[in-house]
Amino acid sequence: MARILITSGPTRQYLDPVRYLTNASSGRMGAALAAAALELGHDVTIVSGPVEVPYPATAEVIPVVSTEEMLAAARTAFARCDGLIGAAAPCDYRPERVEDQKIAKTGAPLLLHLLETDDVVATLAAEKGARWVVGFALETDDHRLRALAKLERKRCDLMVSNGVAAMNSLENEVEILDPHGAVLRAAAGSKESVAREILAVIQERLINPEMPSPAND
Amino acid sequence: MARILITSGPTRQYLDPVRYLTNASSGRMGAALAAAALELGHDVTIVSGPVEVPYPATAEVIPVVSTEEMLAAARTAFARCDGLIGAAAPCDYRPERVEDQKIAKTGAPLLLHLLETDDVVATLAAEKGARWVVGFALETDDHRLRALAKLERKRCDLMVSNGVAAMNSLENEVEILDPHGAVLRAAAGSKESVAREILAVIQERLINPEMPSPAND
Repeated sequence: MARILITSGPTRQYLDPVRYLTNASSGRMGAALAAAALELGHDVTIVSGPVEVPYPATAEVIPVVSTEEMLAAARTAFARCDGLIGAAAPCDYRPERVEDQKIAKTGAPLLLHLLETDDVVATLAAEKGARWVVGFALETDDHRLRALAKLERKRCDLMVSNGVAAMNSLENEVEILDPHGAVLRAAAGSKESVAREILAVIQERLINPEMPSPAND
Repeated sequence: MARILITSGPTRQYLDPVRYLTNASSGRMGAALAAAALELGHDVTIVSGPVEVPYPATAEVIPVVSTEEMLAAARTAFARCDGLIGAAAPCDYRPERVEDQKIAKTGAPLLLHLLETDDVVATLAAEKGARWVVGFALETDDHRLRALAKLERKRCDLMVSNGVAAMNSLENEVEILDPHGAVLRAAAGSKESVAREILAVIQERLINPEMPSPAND
């Protein structure tokens, strides 16, 4: 039995009290991963951005809005977890300046200075010690190559590569890559069935890695 | 009996295939206005941005994503309507350039050039002729003054003024202003009850304006 931290959903980076940058992540993949982990008998904590999707009742859910909040909540929760599945799509740019009042339109163009937010998965993986980290890569092209580059840069133990069609969809199509670039498994179908495949690989490789067989002694 | 066009929900302005600018409009006020209009026996067409809220089954719903799409769909629908209630919160800035592929992070700041989108309510009101237009103003400060300025600039027949707390909330608190700046009605409570109050004022002032009484002849 493991305690698994799952980040899920989008985050929002507000420009002013009304407008924000975000993406169409629905939290459905995170919810499906939580259900699959619970089915295997694990404990689950979900740090989730704003979503409408229901999470399993037996998962602990910590709601957040911004990427900064997601990182802070995930870091706290990770301290008491055995592994992290980073299924969230945190907004990776934030306005350098956030206005207190709604920006009034003037008719002129608005120049928005955006800074990169801290990467939630990379930050936690750098502090992981003996814990394991599984990342997700969402790319519009060169999926496998970019996913492998992300795995290395973010120091993940496994990387799940998917395309942009996965966002706010009921289905998904993924490849699960190991640090050597090997495709451990490819899965397509409902997010529920894909989540079970991902958890099966995590179980086999990271939670209960095979003991060296006595024949090899 | 009137045919009423209601715009509802947020719109999205994409920077690239993944990231977009938006706001937290839920479409609940638009759904409540549609229900209130149907209760009074009117026909309702809703042009709605991406929302999770269910709309009344007897309303015609036209889904859109961007502000440009909302304006185009609303303009087409307005041609066969008697009046417009602009309850949507269209994203009012759009990136000057939309990237085909996901913008790759470089570690450097990103300078985003934003242009104002065309104002849906102002554009349709400029073409309204004998039809009526009711706008919504969402302001973080000086609600009434800014709402009145918007009413004039957008050539509305009535303006509903509300605060930012209305967004993605089950409740609302509004003032209904006429072109002279008079507060015709103030209403607070569930979005359903506030919507009924707004429709009552629209019915009385715009759909069935009082005939001059014979005593005045």
